Amino acid sequence: MSKDTRERLLAAGLQMLLERGYNGLGIQDLLAETGTPKGSFYHHFASKEAFALAVVDRYMEEVHRGLDQTLSDPARAPLDRVRDFLELSAEKYRSEGNLGCLLGGLGQELSGINDRFRLKVEQCLSAIAERFVTCFDEARAQGDLPAEADSRALANRLLDCWEGAALRSRLWRDPAPLKAMLDFYFAQVAGTERVLT
Amino acid sequence: MSKDTRERLLAAGLQMLLERGYNGLGIQDLLAETGTPKGSFYHHFASKEAFALAVVDRYMEEVHRGLDQTLSDPARAPLDRVRDFLELSAEKYRSEGNLGCLLGGLGQELSGINDRFRLKVEQCLSAIAERFVTCFDEARAQGDLPAEADSRALANRLLDCWEGAALRSRLWRDPAPLKAMLDFYFAQVAGTERVLT
Repeated sequence: MSKDTRERLLAAGLQMLLERGYNGLGIQDLLAETGTPKGSFYHHFASKEAFALAVVDRYMEEVHRGLDQTLSDPARAPLDRVRDFLELSAEKYRSEGNLGCLLGGLGQELSGINDRFRLKVEQCLSAIAERFVTCFDEARAQGDLPAEADSRALANRLLDCWEGAALRSRLWRDPAPLKAMLDFYFAQVAGTERVLT
Repeated sequence: MSKDTRERLLAAGLQMLLERGYNGLGIQDLLAETGTPKGSFYHHFASKEAFALAVVDRYMEEVHRGLDQTLSDPARAPLDRVRDFLELSAEKYRSEGNLGCLLGGLGQELSGINDRFRLKVEQCLSAIAERFVTCFDEARAQGDLPAEADSRALANRLLDCWEGAALRSRLWRDPAPLKAMLDFYFAQVAGTERVLT
């Protein structure tokens, strides 16, 4: 029962943070929406900041489940697996109302003055990039990328461009910028014909 | 004197919005930092929202000055001019403490619940993209891009990838992700050797 309360708070908190950001999230609203007594919230979380960091951890659990599901699929070429993960992410954003990526949102809002969030968000992005690195290394080993390609640089470029496209899709409430960015990026990386449309 | 007050508020507001975001910006702090009486602030701005929107307008005036300065330089090839503008922007970010782009920050923080800011930020990004379109069209006319290239699509890809790299540079407090993104993007667009490092 207590575990249910915690889960319910984290799920509602994720959606509220995506919509309103950290400063826009009111604990009173969260309690009202989830029918949770105040004491119960503070039994599970020491503060609003601790709560938001727990939401990020919860978000990352799902991200890593998606990575596990897509990146190790032996039926797909390594570069396709990376793209599969991002298409799964775009699908997830769509199901949440095309609000983009929680990491990008909190990173922009808080990293100017809160080093705990700045380092947390960077740690999460680095962890995702590391997972991509494994696939890019595999692509190099199989000859799908030239031997001199820098897997970590490619992973960071991909993640950075993705986060910008996620912002634009949030502004438009439309996944189109994400799809267009993937076409552009993977044409360059795979060395197929340039995508200039 | 009154105009000076308005300018001082806008300049201080820009730096505070970059660091703290919209919800983190306290009008009291702004008044204290600029030595402005409250009545004077409300003489110039109807509300905090009106103030932040005026800061965005002010920010865009500087962006358009930078675009004027770089995009019409006849001594540079059209694609180089677009890159010049973004390198100038990276230099500006550096001078502000590598906090990234105000449009990306406010877009992420507010666009989930405030349509005025969502539309404003999108309008600003679209206006920048339009300026890029002119240069990409010129590059096509000169044969630096294939005739079938879609200038608007290229402009949007560039802007989206830029905004993501600006987030990463904000997290790192380092311009390196911006430079790396430009190398990656322009190699693809210009059709020179792929940049995979």
